[in-house]
Amino acid sequence: MVRRTDTRQRILDTAAELFHTQGYHATGLNQLTSVGSAPKGSLYFHFPGGKEQLAAEAIAVSSAQLCEVLKKLVVQAPDAATGIESVVNALAQSLLDSDFQRGCPLATVALDVASESELIRQSCVDGYGSWHDALADYLIQQGLSAERAADLTTVVLASIEGGLLLAKTKRDIAPLRAIAVHLRGTIEREVG
Amino acid sequence: MVRRTDTRQRILDTAAELFHTQGYHATGLNQLTSVGSAPKGSLYFHFPGGKEQLAAEAIAVSSAQLCEVLKKLVVQAPDAATGIESVVNALAQSLLDSDFQRGCPLATVALDVASESELIRQSCVDGYGSWHDALADYLIQQGLSAERAADLTTVVLASIEGGLLLAKTKRDIAPLRAIAVHLRGTIEREVG
Repeated sequence: MVRRTDTRQRILDTAAELFHTQGYHATGLNQLTSVGSAPKGSLYFHFPGGKEQLAAEAIAVSSAQLCEVLKKLVVQAPDAATGIESVVNALAQSLLDSDFQRGCPLATVALDVASESELIRQSCVDGYGSWHDALADYLIQQGLSAERAADLTTVVLASIEGGLLLAKTKRDIAPLRAIAVHLRGTIEREVG
Repeated sequence: MVRRTDTRQRILDTAAELFHTQGYHATGLNQLTSVGSAPKGSLYFHFPGGKEQLAAEAIAVSSAQLCEVLKKLVVQAPDAATGIESVVNALAQSLLDSDFQRGCPLATVALDVASESELIRQSCVDGYGSWHDALADYLIQQGLSAERAADLTTVVLASIEGGLLLAKTKRDIAPLRAIAVHLRGTIEREVG
């Protein structure tokens, strides 16, 4: 017998994957239940707020997963420049391994629906905020002031987001390679 | 009497605006003709390839418009750092003036449909390529080598794209301010 929590989690995992790769509007309710093999009707039982609630929760799941990956990557690095470079490289590899389907898990939803739904927008803001905090905390540990770490992390996040967008569109990770080199130089100059 | 070219152009302008602000999947065929006050059925008459052809052409229109803006902004600037800063500032102002609706005119479509349509993806690639060429040519005129100008322009474009994405999502142009400061410092160091 399938427990209630299993069905809910399966719908949520399916939603996180579909919203990641194709965004909000391209993802239909039928696809959300059929891909996840969930009984029809179970979506509104588990998510009374429907697709909007599901998207907001799926974004939170994806954000938390990537945040853990970011933290693990930087903590294993010998220095700050290598830490940030390893983040860029891991995201480039994920894009390549998925045949350019899996870019930033939040970006497509953030652009295609956040201006229509305050619930989803806030979930995206929280996700980006969690990644920002994780990387800024790391740069502070590496010797930057809190203010400088915050600004530099914004530059790091924005460059990576834009690099993923350009690389996904061009089906070529060269933009992420240029970003990795630039961020390494920037961080080496500041952290030493 | 409305000339054929007027109706075609009106549909195209409407499409460029709708795809810019809400992406591909959220934009319905009815909306494309009703907002542009075009006769029903005229869409497939003027665009036999339907929504896909219309999107690819609309992306080309939006790309060319922004490319002209970029060229005008940099040519008016006294130096390269100010030129690139004025581009970031103009895009930040446009986002603010549109209540955070008008970010990059290509990004939403690039993320939400380019992996499904080779025609649309190529139109996005051409658009990003035209902006890249315009800015790289400018940096070469300002004294950079062709190779260095190409890499630096990739960093500039990616940072701006990511900055627009973060700013639109947060409804706050602060990320673009941080990008502007960072790019000014980077370009001053390289171009002098």
